[in-house]
Amino acid sequence: MLRKRKLGRGVAVVGVGITKFGCYPKGVRATDLFVDAFQDMKSSSVDKGFREEDVEAFYIGNLSSDIFEKQIHCAASVVSRVGLVPRPALKIENACGSSGVAFREGVIAIASGIYDMVVAGGMEKMTNLPTTQVTETLGLALDPVCEIPAGETFPGIFATIATAHMAKYGTTVEDFMRVGIKNHHNASLNPKAHFDASIKDFMKRRAAQAVKKGLPKPHWSDEMEFLHDPAQNPIIAWPMRLFDCSTVCDGASCALLVAEDMAKEFTDSPIYVIGTGQGSDYPVHEREDMTSLNAVKEAARQAYNVADVGPQDIGIAEVHDCFTIAEILCLENLGFYKPGEAVRAIREGETNLNGKLPINMDGGLKAKGHPVGATGTGMVAELFVQMRGNAGPRQVKHKDIDLGLMLNFGSQGSTAVVNIFERR
Amino acid sequence: MLRKRKLGRGVAVVGVGITKFGCYPKGVRATDLFVDAFQDMKSSSVDKGFREEDVEAFYIGNLSSDIFEKQIHCAASVVSRVGLVPRPALKIENACGSSGVAFREGVIAIASGIYDMVVAGGMEKMTNLPTTQVTETLGLALDPVCEIPAGETFPGIFATIATAHMAKYGTTVEDFMRVGIKNHHNASLNPKAHFDASIKDFMKRRAAQAVKKGLPKPHWSDEMEFLHDPAQNPIIAWPMRLFDCSTVCDGASCALLVAEDMAKEFTDSPIYVIGTGQGSDYPVHEREDMTSLNAVKEAARQAYNVADVGPQDIGIAEVHDCFTIAEILCLENLGFYKPGEAVRAIREGETNLNGKLPINMDGGLKAKGHPVGATGTGMVAELFVQMRGNAGPRQVKHKDIDLGLMLNFGSQGSTAVVNIFERR
Repeated sequence: MLRKRKLGRGVAVVGVGITKFGCYPKGVRATDLFVDAFQDMKSSSVDKGFREEDVEAFYIGNLSSDIFEKQIHCAASVVSRVGLVPRPALKIENACGSSGVAFREGVIAIASGIYDMVVAGGMEKMTNLPTTQVTETLGLALDPVCEIPAGETFPGIFATIATAHMAKYGTTVEDFMRVGIKNHHNASLNPKAHFDASIKDFMKRRAAQAVKKGLPKPHWSDEMEFLHDPAQNPIIAWPMRLFDCSTVCDGASCALLVAEDMAKEFTDSPIYVIGTGQGSDYPVHEREDMTSLNAVKEAARQAYNVADVGPQDIGIAEVHDCFTIAEILCLENLGFYKPGEAVRAIREGETNLNGKLPINMDGGLKAKGHPVGATGTGMVAELFVQMRGNAGPRQVKHKDIDLGLMLNFGSQGSTAVVNIFERR
Repeated sequence: MLRKRKLGRGVAVVGVGITKFGCYPKGVRATDLFVDAFQDMKSSSVDKGFREEDVEAFYIGNLSSDIFEKQIHCAASVVSRVGLVPRPALKIENACGSSGVAFREGVIAIASGIYDMVVAGGMEKMTNLPTTQVTETLGLALDPVCEIPAGETFPGIFATIATAHMAKYGTTVEDFMRVGIKNHHNASLNPKAHFDASIKDFMKRRAAQAVKKGLPKPHWSDEMEFLHDPAQNPIIAWPMRLFDCSTVCDGASCALLVAEDMAKEFTDSPIYVIGTGQGSDYPVHEREDMTSLNAVKEAARQAYNVADVGPQDIGIAEVHDCFTIAEILCLENLGFYKPGEAVRAIREGETNLNGKLPINMDGGLKAKGHPVGATGTGMVAELFVQMRGNAGPRQVKHKDIDLGLMLNFGSQGSTAVVNIFERR
């Protein structure tokens, strides 16, 4: 396992596409959203254009069109919907890490020499079901032998991990809230976000709603007071409140991957994939330390190894904040901060858009949204625009971004995938 | 699309494992079956042994543990169950072609240089649900826009294709029956088959059952008469009868893939993967000719191209006989026979175990069984034992087998994957 892993040839991203994340009508299928993301890629990126018929394969992440939409074999539908039959397509399911893994497999496929150009993407149509059924469906990604029979759900299991982190490192509920405040702020600058609203925007809206109902105008002195108000931010599973949880929504995203030596045919500023790694872990009750995500550590170790860089070299990152505690865990287990020290960095604003290490510039799963199958390549889409300086009002401007990293994980961290990108 | 595709480095199979296909109790999970297949691989093949901890990744085919078992993220469960955390694992879903595609992706991954050793396999636990619900679940792999709303099921759609083949080429119901008779004969020599019984065995059993019930002993002059008896072989969707349909069952299978230059460390007689291809197609109603499977043609074209061989070079093949008509379509669309001519070959026994081109030596999906996610790597398992001369009573002995081919497809042929193997 300690051998130096290397890809057979280099791979670059030359375009990305993404839908607005949010609630779409019941008649819209995940494959329709994928077509929209593919069109967005064609029209808004790939500077010099590309011939659709040169796409050789589709790697599609999707958690469960099976249950959400009563559709199996959705990858084949994608190809016929984009009109590129007989190109091969495959669906990869690794719970919420599905399209992060699909992206990695697309990279591996080009590295193998079998393809020169592939589309890697993901999609999910979750809102056909009522939210309680969505939570139940997502929960099927937990361990079926112990966790599911014990009544665990994702809010429950991340709440458990959060209390462990509080006990071990003195982390507070306010620290979790700070993650949410930051990510909602970033999302307010992202028109594709499900909740393109800061917590301050929510405060204004809720105050206006109260007045409209003839109630006294509420006053919260700051965002923290708002988030402590149980009427505004009820507890879902203590210490995780509503604004600590990522959103249930629909969406799709994709990226155009080509062999490195062809990249400049499509754009003068490709983003190169220089590292990739993936790991797995036991269910939470079998782990020695609940605050240690070993799949993340393994994925990061592999990716740093392939890229020949370390955590200190990374300029920006998109990480898996399915719950606010998860963002903290990601920062620590990726090696950005020592265990227990990410919270200090968050308190000091280091992970803000204008901070030392901007995290989840697009609003993250928390506020941009988490249409599970679309999340991983959604992270790639954000890194691509940030590293090329095209992120508009949320662009990181105060520092050079030579290296970006994405961490997408599945379930309670039993899968993790890390990809590292370079601007040259 | 016409570029010569090549893998970056060679890949070999050095071991295979498979469970008996059949009905397992409700408490047995697909992951349990996968563990059994993995154990079978360790104990019965890989001549010189291997260190489990050298396995670097798992590529797992599975259609829908989501619906069949209420489990998502089953790939991660596989790794923890075989005790190989933190190795990465991913699930690939391409309907009934899932593990054929998983195998191909495992080959591509080794070719890329990122891994030297992976396990590719598949699994399905279908029998927890009543058969009608299984049929309905499988049917979700059809086109959700037209085929499913039109009430199509797999027996229905393959019956439609069968009538088109009859109309175009004069194929008869007896031709379909001949495929079933052959495959049941082969399965009677395979202890791992779900129905390890020939049609003659069925005739004896049914006669004995009748006598036991005090009924007159039935007499069928031959297998064909038995298969024409509606009491024994009822019509499911004309012209497909019960014995034209593959079986609903549970099972798992896997293969150990290594980089070609390492293969002899594990066995003196590795089987090399020299060709691979995958294609897609539109739903049936959008095809110009129902008897032409364009995804199969594309997958075969790619695989022959990579391997630098043609259909005339193949010695044995495992093909996707989800219905007896499908075996005929496979033989024609792979280029083994011209359209309409496979039936002549079947009538003359060319596809029998001792024929010119033995097909489905293990009994095929028809009689060995079709636990959907396990089917593709189940084909690999059969080619591996046949090409090494270890297939016992069903061993093809009358000819040298230098090249073997597998064709696994998904749904109504909207995905197809072909892999070609060489003995050196």
